[in-house]
Amino acid sequence: MKKRVFIQELSKYIGKDVTTGGWVHSIRDQGKIVFILLRDRTGIVQLVTNPSIIKNNDIRLETVMYATGTVGEDSRAPGGIEIKLKEVEALSSPVRPLPIIVNEKAYHQKLELETMLNNRVLSLRNPKRNMIFRLQAGIIDAFRSFMTAEGFTEVTTPKIIATGTEGGTQLFAVDYFNKLAYLAQSPQFYKQMLVGAGYERVFEIGHVFRAEEHNTSRHLNEYVSLDYEMGFIENEHDVMDVEERFIHYLFEMLNQKYSHVLSSYEQTLPESCKIPRLPIREACKILEKEYGKKIVGFDLDPEGEKLICEWAKKDSGTELIFLIEYPRSKRPVYTMPLESDPEFTRSFDLLFRGLEITTGGQRIHDYNMLVDSFKQRGLNPGDFSYYLDTFAYGMPPHGGLAIGLERITAQILGLSNIREASIFPRDRNRLIP
Amino acid sequence: MKKRVFIQELSKYIGKDVTTGGWVHSIRDQGKIVFILLRDRTGIVQLVTNPSIIKNNDIRLETVMYATGTVGEDSRAPGGIEIKLKEVEALSSPVRPLPIIVNEKAYHQKLELETMLNNRVLSLRNPKRNMIFRLQAGIIDAFRSFMTAEGFTEVTTPKIIATGTEGGTQLFAVDYFNKLAYLAQSPQFYKQMLVGAGYERVFEIGHVFRAEEHNTSRHLNEYVSLDYEMGFIENEHDVMDVEERFIHYLFEMLNQKYSHVLSSYEQTLPESCKIPRLPIREACKILEKEYGKKIVGFDLDPEGEKLICEWAKKDSGTELIFLIEYPRSKRPVYTMPLESDPEFTRSFDLLFRGLEITTGGQRIHDYNMLVDSFKQRGLNPGDFSYYLDTFAYGMPPHGGLAIGLERITAQILGLSNIREASIFPRDRNRLIP
Repeated sequence: MKKRVFIQELSKYIGKDVTTGGWVHSIRDQGKIVFILLRDRTGIVQLVTNPSIIKNNDIRLETVMYATGTVGEDSRAPGGIEIKLKEVEALSSPVRPLPIIVNEKAYHQKLELETMLNNRVLSLRNPKRNMIFRLQAGIIDAFRSFMTAEGFTEVTTPKIIATGTEGGTQLFAVDYFNKLAYLAQSPQFYKQMLVGAGYERVFEIGHVFRAEEHNTSRHLNEYVSLDYEMGFIENEHDVMDVEERFIHYLFEMLNQKYSHVLSSYEQTLPESCKIPRLPIREACKILEKEYGKKIVGFDLDPEGEKLICEWAKKDSGTELIFLIEYPRSKRPVYTMPLESDPEFTRSFDLLFRGLEITTGGQRIHDYNMLVDSFKQRGLNPGDFSYYLDTFAYGMPPHGGLAIGLERITAQILGLSNIREASIFPRDRNRLIP
Repeated sequence: MKKRVFIQELSKYIGKDVTTGGWVHSIRDQGKIVFILLRDRTGIVQLVTNPSIIKNNDIRLETVMYATGTVGEDSRAPGGIEIKLKEVEALSSPVRPLPIIVNEKAYHQKLELETMLNNRVLSLRNPKRNMIFRLQAGIIDAFRSFMTAEGFTEVTTPKIIATGTEGGTQLFAVDYFNKLAYLAQSPQFYKQMLVGAGYERVFEIGHVFRAEEHNTSRHLNEYVSLDYEMGFIENEHDVMDVEERFIHYLFEMLNQKYSHVLSSYEQTLPESCKIPRLPIREACKILEKEYGKKIVGFDLDPEGEKLICEWAKKDSGTELIFLIEYPRSKRPVYTMPLESDPEFTRSFDLLFRGLEITTGGQRIHDYNMLVDSFKQRGLNPGDFSYYLDTFAYGMPPHGGLAIGLERITAQILGLSNIREASIFPRDRNRLIP
């Protein structure tokens, strides 16, 4: 490996000769002198040279090269550092004109979403856009650290499955050695089974697949789900307590390690993460009373989600709100009903800045109750025996939830379309890149 | 959440009353007195009670319950701890007889693989079998910590793709809104693209899908791949250097945190992780000379892999060996050829105790060379433009590899069939549970 100093560390080498490497971010030719900005994964530095070096080495925008020279200080240069170039080694130069502009100003030119995604690799070279997925990696890391510290075991569950979690809708079909199989729309059944397999607390970071016809700014057909499931709970509030603490942990970590990303996107995170828990029935009354908005069947549309968040911010200063106790008809077959009113359930959504980022709840752990629930939905328990059998041999009360990784990323950074928060998004029309 | 003391922590509560919870592991009825072993995710403890408590609470093997009583010491009990039971709360009891035996002896009875997998949730309750996936979670965690510390960014790439990585073989077909799509057999193209998108170093922990007809003890049709890809390398040896250090880090961590699992499986890990690098041409000569085994086309079969590992152990005491410089015909289209002999490549496999656990190499980063390589294989570059375009706009020299999570797990624990190292394995015939 070539000894290479990262741009971020150059200030330690003032007066010394070093080799650094990266992409040519910009070239400013002033006749006798040329200024190059070189970009690596840690930052941008100014190189000063004479025009012959540029010509002799075929250096253009986005050329990949090593640059060797003397590190000096210059208050006018980005980061206050400048390298007087002695030698370059061009590793790879563009073979044709760039289809989009990579360097800084491009982001402010508001690249059209389709153009941005069609040219994903180049558009991600823009430093501000590049940061989105560094921060996203931070979210994944925070989820994993937090869950592990809470005694959860990380698991990986199958993505090719024989039956759908909720009975056959919204599933992509797979040809599995001439048998019909599906892509998992959630690790739901498997994470419950692993609670029952003695792990008690499990989490998974994995892809889920939804064959929804929706083509909105909030939906992807393939996304990453941060899932956890925990046994020996009293009720769904234990599950929400863990999420509340996770959100607090996450926001603190992002403030510490990713403050430059947050400020680059002009975002600040909520200070207090005490999250109110509002029954959906109350939420609907508030929407009607405060905004004249009638909700049918306790089913909030996107405007309803925005308005109830608006209300929560006004009423209690919070940007996060749990809506709880959804009606049974709106929740999956395995959702635990409320004893006091079995038409409603021990379920919840977490809304953040107008968007649902989590769905969760307590699950039915009693075998007979669960089999009855399947029958009531017109599902044949026999089709799900690999799942239902789990409950036949001793299953603790349990619950869990799923957080949409791209959704929480988008809400944290204020991205208007979820596709911006997916490295290579998949939607109704997009299968490449 | 009910205040519950984990079994592992009971020794801190001698003389005190506590509530603990878990599954009933065994019941030994001695007439006036009954001994119950209770199992939670941290261990097993003995409860002492009278027969009426058992009868009144419908307590059977694998009943889930809370147990409240006084903690005492008893050298005959497992862990030297005993709880004198005062009260139990049964949460869930089996509704039918257990199809397999869960408690300890079962593992030694060598449950048939098919029975074990058909009853996966119950078979995983066996403490020894349960440990496999705790250790596997440790491998994932080690990979992530190590890669992050080395400056790699964690990424998530699409699993539904438009074209295969290697041109259409061994792919599962997906019906994607009436368009033909495939499941990714590797994140290969995407991780290279993300090196080029400015991340320079990326890793992914994700599912890959192989529609191979193989039904062997070494193959799964869906497995978890630990992938990394790194830019600004000199050659493939930089990629191997990182893996060598990872293996060292992993084994140290496993020795520290999972020594009880290793000893339970009667395994010790190699102390030195200095891994020899042997050209495949040399390996074939050795196999012929030492074992009279003729290899056609430099393609080791399972026996060849076993024998070369046997030789390496004998020759240099190592259980790990890199075989390097595979012929071009045996490696993917994007593999960097050797300058000195272009029929061979800058590629490698890592073998561990007789099994290939890694494939990797340096990739072609020059646009024209890569397009030519596609053409030479009879592939149409136009079908891969979303990938090839990456190389048209400045791409650093780079390489990477993939480690099969289930394979490395199986080799570390000495499991004879890879299905034992997959929580819910998928093979030619198995789609459930």
